[in-house]
Amino acid sequence: MRTIDWVDGAVEIIDQTALPDTERTLRLTTVDEVIDAIQRLAVRGAPAIGVAGALGVAIAARQYADEPDALTSAVLRLETARPTAVNLARGVRTAASALGGGPQAVLDAALALRDAEIASSAAMAERGADLVAVLCGSAPRLLTHCNTGGLATVTGGTALGVVAELHRRGGLGAVIASETRPLLQGARLTAWELGRLGIDYQVAVDGAGPFLMARGEVDAVILGADRVCANGDVINKVGSYAHALGARAAGIPFIVVAPETTVDEHTPSGETVEIEDRAADEVLHFGNARSAPPGARAINPAFDVTPYHLVTAIVTDTRVIEPNA
Amino acid sequence: MRTIDWVDGAVEIIDQTALPDTERTLRLTTVDEVIDAIQRLAVRGAPAIGVAGALGVAIAARQYADEPDALTSAVLRLETARPTAVNLARGVRTAASALGGGPQAVLDAALALRDAEIASSAAMAERGADLVAVLCGSAPRLLTHCNTGGLATVTGGTALGVVAELHRRGGLGAVIASETRPLLQGARLTAWELGRLGIDYQVAVDGAGPFLMARGEVDAVILGADRVCANGDVINKVGSYAHALGARAAGIPFIVVAPETTVDEHTPSGETVEIEDRAADEVLHFGNARSAPPGARAINPAFDVTPYHLVTAIVTDTRVIEPNA
Repeated sequence: MRTIDWVDGAVEIIDQTALPDTERTLRLTTVDEVIDAIQRLAVRGAPAIGVAGALGVAIAARQYADEPDALTSAVLRLETARPTAVNLARGVRTAASALGGGPQAVLDAALALRDAEIASSAAMAERGADLVAVLCGSAPRLLTHCNTGGLATVTGGTALGVVAELHRRGGLGAVIASETRPLLQGARLTAWELGRLGIDYQVAVDGAGPFLMARGEVDAVILGADRVCANGDVINKVGSYAHALGARAAGIPFIVVAPETTVDEHTPSGETVEIEDRAADEVLHFGNARSAPPGARAINPAFDVTPYHLVTAIVTDTRVIEPNA
Repeated sequence: MRTIDWVDGAVEIIDQTALPDTERTLRLTTVDEVIDAIQRLAVRGAPAIGVAGALGVAIAARQYADEPDALTSAVLRLETARPTAVNLARGVRTAASALGGGPQAVLDAALALRDAEIASSAAMAERGADLVAVLCGSAPRLLTHCNTGGLATVTGGTALGVVAELHRRGGLGAVIASETRPLLQGARLTAWELGRLGIDYQVAVDGAGPFLMARGEVDAVILGADRVCANGDVINKVGSYAHALGARAAGIPFIVVAPETTVDEHTPSGETVEIEDRAADEVLHFGNARSAPPGARAINPAFDVTPYHLVTAIVTDTRVIEPNA
């Protein structure tokens, strides 16, 4: 299963808005379709949208082969479709740098990024599982947030790839999936992936995380990142910072797993990162059910900043960064 | 509007499971109906369920006037209908202590508790608003969690009563209602009450609270309690502890508002309090919408413990407790 791929001249993605109820593949053939899929989170996860952006440029190179201004505009729109994950702009620029070589060169660059992300996931799973075993012993009970499995990458995953690798090694104690409001990527997507992997898990509301840590039911927090800043600040799904505070108070490790494509040496710290504000409706609804009364407003930052001093380790495909070492 | 009252020989409550969509009054005429209403949170909030327990004993005294064993059993079932809020057991015992005087004496004791809670709310609103003005200046932006308004008491409220009083004084900057998963008391009930009070507000997911504090958008956290321990540890709706960690990290006050009936000098600290674990379905559903896949499990502690060292002040109807002073 691949979350995103190039199939017969188009981008195919698993529609993540339909999971876990419906397993549906969407076929994207225009730049607008790719941008729409990224913006409404039909494809999501920093590594996956990096690949989506690169493949979007491959579509643009075909769609606008004879319209250079339209092509330039399409690349810019892809690059800025969402602001926070560095992977998107980076994937778009990687593919766009091959535009001089024609459409096939762009596609080749995008497919190389796809393959690199697949290899990254495998490398992170090994390195992350080794680190968790060292830090937490033979049967760690892990809390994770949002979705960082195959659905967030191409296949494999970042933090959830580590969880799966620990399970394969027989070295996993338990998993709590923090549900991740408002869009429930933990309850919907992580739970779906864990079920397919045959890994037992429990869902918890996000607000319960720090208390479960305080009560001694969690040995480490492990999650992904949408951007890792030069100083080690981690930008990730909203709610991550609260878990980091809980982990610090409980004296347990807070481990981030992300490929090198997520590490942004050009952003000095979290202060300067644009945090995407999404629509109020995401907060005011749960599935089709409305929660708040008519007329309610909401504030909906999609990400937050975990300062480096709360981060025990950042596991990438090539190294382990210890921001406080 | 009263959340709970004695009307024509029965307990009448606003059905809080139906809000904000439907405003419905339930009439409870048997002990089993009162217990059921408490357990499924048709009536909720520590002060309100204290009054419900007391009025439940008044019903029991009539229902089992000639069956002393059944009466004893009914009182015990009321006292233990939910374990965490001290108000319930205390309200039941207050009313039960009048059983020797007959049904009317029990009812009089229960109504006296009702009236005392109404007076408490008014006193807390004044004292709390004074304190917030001193700590946060003239236009504080407050974050609150769960529901602590008239719906959690008889009328008025605890923390939300303070918010309303600040609004009446023209001294309220802004309010963020943390939605309070799993049952969304913030999005459903606090939002409904704020709307009726004419107070502008924004709903946020629970996981966003600490980040909004870090970003400088909150001047204080203000919320209620289900039990205040002798050392100042605060038991409150799950998610409160995460907000307390966020407030401490941001250097803003964390203020608890609760009547003296919630202060339990017989419980030395939070470690010994029984935290109610509720059904997994509450986490895995909202209304008719399912979040996780079939077969998912969940862990659902309804409350958490905020250690006293994170608590700036506890405002009661008679005093301000500063656990760290």
